[in-house]
Amino acid sequence: MAKQKPSVPKGTRDFTPMEMGRRDYIFNAIKRIFHMYGYSPIETPAMENLSTLLGKYGEEGDKLLFRILNSGDFMSKLSEGERDLPSNEISSKICDRGLRYDLTVPFARFVVQHQHEIVFPFKRYQIQPVWRADRPQKGRYREFYQCDADVVGSASLMNEAELIDIIDKVFSALSIQVSIKINNRKILAGIADYISEKDKIVDITVALDKLDKIGKEKVKEELEFKGISRKAIDRLEPILEMKGNRYDKTTSLQQILASSNEGIQGISEIETIFDLIQHTNIQNEMEFDLTLARGLNYYTGTIIEVKAKDIEIGSICGGGRYDDLTGIFGLEGTSGVGISFGADRIYDVLLQLGKFPENVEVTTQIMFVNFGDAEARYCIPILKELRESGITAEFYPEDVKLKKQFSYANNKKIKYVAIAGEQEMANNKLTVKSMESGEQMTIDKSGIVPFLKG
Amino acid sequence: MAKQKPSVPKGTRDFTPMEMGRRDYIFNAIKRIFHMYGYSPIETPAMENLSTLLGKYGEEGDKLLFRILNSGDFMSKLSEGERDLPSNEISSKICDRGLRYDLTVPFARFVVQHQHEIVFPFKRYQIQPVWRADRPQKGRYREFYQCDADVVGSASLMNEAELIDIIDKVFSALSIQVSIKINNRKILAGIADYISEKDKIVDITVALDKLDKIGKEKVKEELEFKGISRKAIDRLEPILEMKGNRYDKTTSLQQILASSNEGIQGISEIETIFDLIQHTNIQNEMEFDLTLARGLNYYTGTIIEVKAKDIEIGSICGGGRYDDLTGIFGLEGTSGVGISFGADRIYDVLLQLGKFPENVEVTTQIMFVNFGDAEARYCIPILKELRESGITAEFYPEDVKLKKQFSYANNKKIKYVAIAGEQEMANNKLTVKSMESGEQMTIDKSGIVPFLKG
Repeated sequence: MAKQKPSVPKGTRDFTPMEMGRRDYIFNAIKRIFHMYGYSPIETPAMENLSTLLGKYGEEGDKLLFRILNSGDFMSKLSEGERDLPSNEISSKICDRGLRYDLTVPFARFVVQHQHEIVFPFKRYQIQPVWRADRPQKGRYREFYQCDADVVGSASLMNEAELIDIIDKVFSALSIQVSIKINNRKILAGIADYISEKDKIVDITVALDKLDKIGKEKVKEELEFKGISRKAIDRLEPILEMKGNRYDKTTSLQQILASSNEGIQGISEIETIFDLIQHTNIQNEMEFDLTLARGLNYYTGTIIEVKAKDIEIGSICGGGRYDDLTGIFGLEGTSGVGISFGADRIYDVLLQLGKFPENVEVTTQIMFVNFGDAEARYCIPILKELRESGITAEFYPEDVKLKKQFSYANNKKIKYVAIAGEQEMANNKLTVKSMESGEQMTIDKSGIVPFLKG
Repeated sequence: MAKQKPSVPKGTRDFTPMEMGRRDYIFNAIKRIFHMYGYSPIETPAMENLSTLLGKYGEEGDKLLFRILNSGDFMSKLSEGERDLPSNEISSKICDRGLRYDLTVPFARFVVQHQHEIVFPFKRYQIQPVWRADRPQKGRYREFYQCDADVVGSASLMNEAELIDIIDKVFSALSIQVSIKINNRKILAGIADYISEKDKIVDITVALDKLDKIGKEKVKEELEFKGISRKAIDRLEPILEMKGNRYDKTTSLQQILASSNEGIQGISEIETIFDLIQHTNIQNEMEFDLTLARGLNYYTGTIIEVKAKDIEIGSICGGGRYDDLTGIFGLEGTSGVGISFGADRIYDVLLQLGKFPENVEVTTQIMFVNFGDAEARYCIPILKELRESGITAEFYPEDVKLKKQFSYANNKKIKYVAIAGEQEMANNKLTVKSMESGEQMTIDKSGIVPFLKG
């Protein structure tokens, strides 16, 4: 076989032990807090039937699904004419499955499929990779992890308050200062209603979402381009210019949207959530952001988005309420609300801010030098005792030069090296060297466990 | 959109919170022991370039790879004639990537790609799912987890001994009694040499592997069918009939294979490993099994296979030494040895033997009943305090009938339910009910943390 220059597919990554240590630091913080609030873990398969995935993420999302070629003689199942179909049509004839695109749709499928085994309200979390055939770029990968917590089967805004509390606790645990922005789809619907462009709500929210980035004039241009009337855009003007604190905003909105039941309902939900959050005493700031829209079109109520304060990196957590998601799989009237942490971006934030603790990488506490068979026989029972006491310990596998063995210990950040030469063996001793300080001392071999535990 | 009956692809599974708890019990035991011996975690992407995967698992393996359809207009890149190619040829023109089939080949690719960042000998572990387009059947899935530990860059048999020690410790930790069988490819090569059928070694090992199952006569038939001469089969006869303990076997083999350096080397390796293992004092039995061959053809030295003693379920762990694996990716002369635990079969063994401990599922320690807003305000600060003390606590999100709330707590196996009604609130109290015993008592609200910690 010819030699190959090894590489991974574009947009995917290997994780080294150091990176694994850092990622586990993030995952463990998130998991610990999910548990603390009573969320239970589930997992779903990497591949789902395409019928489960298609049509859930919009046209663009469908294009970004990784499809898995059917096994066996898939071409023989095509008629002569079908072989000449364009790629997008042929792909659905030769692929029945795709890789999951997010954790929310598989979760909705899970809830419906297992509805008789589940206790509702069902509080679940899920930490798994997702795949998107996006164009790879800095900070955007084709395989990345999502960490989701959702509550399904309860319409109470207590759930929103709890999830915001969880967001606050996770980022406090990770020492990242964040701004938690919330909005409500009902307010956006109320606005679309108010300007008499109800069927253009998606275009309006997409444009509003860009207000921060491109400014008011460009947003208006975009709205006009999307076919929204001049008159409607004029009516939108005071909303685009809305300033002030939360009370100022909700007060003006209550006047502007007075005729929209849905809009008023959205404002009331925002106020209830702020009220509930007061009691949990969150550390990070929470802001009502009227321009927050979020792309995914299954949200129907609250929308949440989180940005890191000290760094420009986009959203590191987001979520919202969706009333209609399980309906498509046959379970109607089951409301859900969830959040999703973007582990990869959180990783980048911690790295750039230098906020990873030292020693997140799993290392070995003590390595025993290998001098050969006789010494091995002396050392192996000691290693056994150490491991039984919960101390991570290695015996260097080869009887090579001391320098090489020490270099291994040093590179692997092993804390102590133990040496048992003739002298030590004759006296039931061990010489232990601290790799940090360089100090070394000789102790009774029976004293090694207390030495390392102490 | 039409309603869909939700399901997962054939051969894949969802994992409920209970199943996740059981799986984590297995993964945590394995991880803890890998750490204890100085193995560091890595992860590789779910998808690899097909060039990395193809040709590594034999012809059969190539067929079982899940291939990912290229994005974009893949059909337009085919010439007119290519559209009429059979499935197996067209698939390599429209797919550049596949899902990983095991963890060993991606690991070999990883080692070569990251050779300048790695400290050798490199001891890594990896716990990730793999995918095979196998026909699903009881206990065989298309997505399943492997838990691998490998050492690369050391030819020392100390590594084999260490990995066998790890196998022993993992199954002891899980309370599964196992039989650890070892053999050596060099002995198998020596035998092929001895019967003058060196180029038929694969056929010979495959046939030998079935000795236990189909018996001597059928094995001889299979060998004849594979074109091995009558004379060669006659020479094999005493080997097929070999009986006795390890010393009997190695002694006879040393005589039979006296003229094969490779065979003698293999016997000597087996003896060294048995010798080294004595010092680690393993709990499970280890056996030299001459018929052990294992399918994967990259093994070159030691072969290891583990079976559960109290149950008929096939191999639950296996491994071996491979001298030539990284060569294909451009790194020659780097020997490796590894083991792989089959988490799904171990799960089935534990379940069938009833050996999962109780309470492996993550549950909530205390749930607070929801009586409405005023009570919520009273309870939420208490929940905050509990969580800050490391106690998992939930507030039922809706103000519904008490019966429904208790039923939720009961189904979710929550240990205590806290009730704060008017009486309790007036006196800074909480009523706590044990869901196990049914007993309840009223305590100061400040006493709840010590009550649950005590």
